[in-house]
Amino acid sequence: MCATCGCGHSNSHESHAHEEITLEQKVLAKNDLLAAANRAYFASRGVVAINLMSSPGSGKTTLLERTIRELRGRPVAVVEGDQETQLDAERIRRTGCPVVQVNTGAGCHLDAAMLRDAVDRLALEQGTLLFVENVGNLVCPALFDLGERGRVVIISVTEGTDKPLKYPYMFAAADLVVVNKVDLLPYVDFDLGACRAHVASVNPKAEVVALSATTGDNLDAWHEWLVS
Amino acid sequence: MCATCGCGHSNSHESHAHEEITLEQKVLAKNDLLAAANRAYFASRGVVAINLMSSPGSGKTTLLERTIRELRGRPVAVVEGDQETQLDAERIRRTGCPVVQVNTGAGCHLDAAMLRDAVDRLALEQGTLLFVENVGNLVCPALFDLGERGRVVIISVTEGTDKPLKYPYMFAAADLVVVNKVDLLPYVDFDLGACRAHVASVNPKAEVVALSATTGDNLDAWHEWLVS
Repeated sequence: MCATCGCGHSNSHESHAHEEITLEQKVLAKNDLLAAANRAYFASRGVVAINLMSSPGSGKTTLLERTIRELRGRPVAVVEGDQETQLDAERIRRTGCPVVQVNTGAGCHLDAAMLRDAVDRLALEQGTLLFVENVGNLVCPALFDLGERGRVVIISVTEGTDKPLKYPYMFAAADLVVVNKVDLLPYVDFDLGACRAHVASVNPKAEVVALSATTGDNLDAWHEWLVS
Repeated sequence: MCATCGCGHSNSHESHAHEEITLEQKVLAKNDLLAAANRAYFASRGVVAINLMSSPGSGKTTLLERTIRELRGRPVAVVEGDQETQLDAERIRRTGCPVVQVNTGAGCHLDAAMLRDAVDRLALEQGTLLFVENVGNLVCPALFDLGERGRVVIISVTEGTDKPLKYPYMFAAADLVVVNKVDLLPYVDFDLGACRAHVASVNPKAEVVALSATTGDNLDAWHEWLVS
């Protein structure tokens, strides 16, 4: 695996291939240990952490804003991941929900240590539902366990039907696939049935919920999954 | 920089930070050498290589299909990058254009060696316009010089106005930013003027062209940029 970007090919730098593989194994092994520690920490406090992953612009933050406003009966908190800016944290803060923004700079994903650092700044209540909005990237975040209970991959109908086939590592990692922006279905070329079949072909266990975070269409199915 | 995914933070694995930085420098330095070789190879044959980068689903392949059908007077070829599948190469092949698909597996970007391997399978004619459709990812491909003449970043109006601020490394690397899917502007919350200002704030030299690859709206501006 490439030492710089996590790609599966080291054909561009054969002379470094062995040291890359060794280092990558160390980095992922250390991340897995820290993710296990996060998982134990969350379990000890009854915190349910949900890792939201998607391309940029799929509507993760809009879905979170609406979810937070509609959720009743349990504390909620959010960790926002972006390369730069506090924009998403500001949007979440306006809902009244506790939030911490993590900026990764040139980085392409959140890792378990970044999440633990952020969580330590949140002082989570017992039983909190913790949403972690990963950096917008349909590739790299799939490699990094954060210690979450559930992994949600969000795609929007504007992105095209074939994404589960073209980015199978991300979809293989998902517990739930949210197909967002169904309000735009009349205006784009997207086949929901085919998309469901593509998800099933790379991950037969993943559930699929099609909804619109903007209009609220089918949000009930999302809320039901969150409490399941 | 993280050894596994190219992120700018090594806070999760301080014990490996030095070896990661050293290895990353080696990998990028080697890529830069290979990119320089590509650049010389392209120059010797009058080949103009254009690197197209974007999130998944921004409409890169649709723009290419239309561009190839409308271009007149010079040979065109395409290198397609995706984690998996031959889907995009099959779409390009139906236009009659020579194309090679590169599958990166778990990888998140094309590098200079992958491009050279692909180009060697294309047997480019003198003066070819070579489009390189990178892996759909608004983060990692920005780090890897391919030896291209021009870098085009494509976003669609469905992705939101704030993307240049949240993913500044990619936009800072662009010669041209294409804002695609303007046919969907009536149905989404997107401020084209603000997006142009955001691009200018991270990259004052980048041109911005707003168009629709689906309807053909403002494709002339794109064709003009290609011959400029």
